[in-house]
Amino acid sequence: MSPYKMNNYFKCSHVCLYSCHAVQESLLSSASGFSNYRGILNWCVVMLVLSNARLFLENIIKYGILVDPIQVVSLFLKDPYSWPAACLIIVSNVFILAALYTERRLAVGTISETTGLILHIFNLSCILVIPAATALTVTSMTSVGGVISLGIYTVLFLKLYSYKDANRWCREIRQAKAKRLTRSYSCECSQRILLVFSDMYYFVFAPTLCYQLNFPRSSRIRKRFLMRRLLEMLFLMQLLVGLIQQWMVPTIQNSMKPFQEMDFSRMVERLLKLAVPNHLIWLIFFYWFFHSSLNFMAELLQFGDREFYRDWWNSETVTYFWANWNIPVHKWCLRHFYKPMLRKGTNKFLAQSAVFLVSAFFHEYLVSIPLRMFRLWAFMGMMAQVPLALFVSRFLNGNYGNAAVWISLIIGQPVAVLMYVHDYYVLHYGSSA
Amino acid sequence: MSPYKMNNYFKCSHVCLYSCHAVQESLLSSASGFSNYRGILNWCVVMLVLSNARLFLENIIKYGILVDPIQVVSLFLKDPYSWPAACLIIVSNVFILAALYTERRLAVGTISETTGLILHIFNLSCILVIPAATALTVTSMTSVGGVISLGIYTVLFLKLYSYKDANRWCREIRQAKAKRLTRSYSCECSQRILLVFSDMYYFVFAPTLCYQLNFPRSSRIRKRFLMRRLLEMLFLMQLLVGLIQQWMVPTIQNSMKPFQEMDFSRMVERLLKLAVPNHLIWLIFFYWFFHSSLNFMAELLQFGDREFYRDWWNSETVTYFWANWNIPVHKWCLRHFYKPMLRKGTNKFLAQSAVFLVSAFFHEYLVSIPLRMFRLWAFMGMMAQVPLALFVSRFLNGNYGNAAVWISLIIGQPVAVLMYVHDYYVLHYGSSA
Repeated sequence: MSPYKMNNYFKCSHVCLYSCHAVQESLLSSASGFSNYRGILNWCVVMLVLSNARLFLENIIKYGILVDPIQVVSLFLKDPYSWPAACLIIVSNVFILAALYTERRLAVGTISETTGLILHIFNLSCILVIPAATALTVTSMTSVGGVISLGIYTVLFLKLYSYKDANRWCREIRQAKAKRLTRSYSCECSQRILLVFSDMYYFVFAPTLCYQLNFPRSSRIRKRFLMRRLLEMLFLMQLLVGLIQQWMVPTIQNSMKPFQEMDFSRMVERLLKLAVPNHLIWLIFFYWFFHSSLNFMAELLQFGDREFYRDWWNSETVTYFWANWNIPVHKWCLRHFYKPMLRKGTNKFLAQSAVFLVSAFFHEYLVSIPLRMFRLWAFMGMMAQVPLALFVSRFLNGNYGNAAVWISLIIGQPVAVLMYVHDYYVLHYGSSA
Repeated sequence: MSPYKMNNYFKCSHVCLYSCHAVQESLLSSASGFSNYRGILNWCVVMLVLSNARLFLENIIKYGILVDPIQVVSLFLKDPYSWPAACLIIVSNVFILAALYTERRLAVGTISETTGLILHIFNLSCILVIPAATALTVTSMTSVGGVISLGIYTVLFLKLYSYKDANRWCREIRQAKAKRLTRSYSCECSQRILLVFSDMYYFVFAPTLCYQLNFPRSSRIRKRFLMRRLLEMLFLMQLLVGLIQQWMVPTIQNSMKPFQEMDFSRMVERLLKLAVPNHLIWLIFFYWFFHSSLNFMAELLQFGDREFYRDWWNSETVTYFWANWNIPVHKWCLRHFYKPMLRKGTNKFLAQSAVFLVSAFFHEYLVSIPLRMFRLWAFMGMMAQVPLALFVSRFLNGNYGNAAVWISLIIGQPVAVLMYVHDYYVLHYGSSA
């Protein structure tokens, strides 16, 4: 009935009023060659919004409002006179200064490279061991406080490791230059090294794990950009906490029974029910951390390099996902672990597996110690990425590969979450929970 | 970690080993200009499949297997010795032959045009009134049997109306030609008209509502195409019945309580819960009827014109949807109702509204009479399309218009279904149901 169709119709029928059929195929027949299914994307979006609106409504009807901002405080604080996580974070300055002084000594040559290396290894070991020991022994440390302080110490470990490596490379280049004066290096390594507090603390707060002298800087602080990121940070933080309280916690609690009774079909049903909120929370967390928070820090510090993630949502292989969703860590692994291993002659597959092994170690470190429970689920989850990557790259490509990556993300995470929660419940509330 | 990224990294860093940052924006910042979100489509598909897999599993756990092929028979047959619907369908031949004999008389001129018109009007009125009267009075007629026989009679009404019009136009053209011999018509109207049984019954079985002499024909019956359509017909038929028994019926039964208690938030929750299976069933029905069944009939009859639907899934306006999802009816409305009205000088909007009015009448006719319940919900549902069409074309376009069309389809239908089912329950099982 659209004007266009009407015109067409009149044109066709003006020879004879009533001849109104023509030989033609149906659009859905492969012979028609038709391929415009743009509307299907809108259909998907509408269906997803409606389905989740229903889930949201069902949840509110079933559980009422569970969001409770006061309860959040108790996650950080068990005993208001003992702030172990905050103390740990303040103590971290000691390790930063230790790394800086070691490098100063190395730069002027008062200690040898070997002594410097030993001092750095000792300093880095302390960074990993001291917070872990604190979290395991101090009973007033909550799990959330533990995760946050261990996370900060892990970031610090990676940053100071990079600081040590980068400064050593710098010295090596300058020594090489001093020996062979003909070759000229145009890079900053040949300039005077400024081993000062301000430079060190800029690196500690900058949203990167890789040290270099004179980071690229943006020309000015865009106030509107800064405000938008800040508002996003605050709003998404509330949303995350609300979704966890309202959606994750009751679903997880409902999952405990089928998991203890090993009722398989209900286990799968619960797992799929958990997958949706878990995945949405992970997506919001991704945006909150990698876009809002890191960009906020970067804007504040006029840090120019904003590549905190690449287009991992288009990943057609598992390795592409891991190489693109978390660029600061990926860059660090490449620069300080994978490339040095390749230079030493390790083959690519072994080096890649080693990266996953280190990553698996840190995942386990960040989960097991705050929960005071050693189960290796996070470790195994990360290590399972290696055979998964081989499988996907071997058998699937294009959109199938992309769908496989999404499925592993959506299903893989809640499996690990349920494993830990199940074991935590059994440990703390006995088998009758 | 992909080889491409590695090469890039080495290239960038070969000037200086450790300069690894560059000024750049995050991809999700509008300043980056990045727009490749192809992976999001795959994400939508994966999320939809997983969500519905869970719903399916939840349904099986809650209700067990409800699919029962024997129960289906009872929908058609209340009393095995009384087959009112089948009898009605056999009787329809009388009306077909009446139309054919009237046209034969008109062609040779033994009755006048006016007498012919009166005979046709009488015949067409009988086609609408007799099955309706039968369905309302014969108690052994089930609702499903009623819908099927009334549907067949409605199709027959439209076909014979078209038959009458097309033959009259043909006579008018031949008379005009006889008067002014200079103008030559190249069309088939000027040829001898074959008012024979075979021609009439070919039209009755052909998948079109618009009559013309010499339909365009396909060259041969493609056996593999025919078999595929037949298998689709059989499989989708089972799937439809299974989905209705397993998914629609329990959901509708669960919806009755909130609707009687007028518990608003639960009513919305139930409505959204019903919307998903209802919409899927409608989509499967669309494919089953408009692609599989009509193509099967067309292939069998070597009927050439397979345009039974156009790309309604891309509709950006409500009128585009109605003009493209059901081409046989749309073509009939255009040829025998909308265009004759325009020729008589009616304005476009009025003619369009009249088409919706007739369509609303037939929707109501097909629902109210088999259920023996006059509620006008279907009528009002169709008539509501006129203001909806005005609203969408006025305020929304592009993907927003498309999303609005999808929402009206996904939400509008279950509202009407729930209205009828609610009233049917109240009528048959009292308010305590």
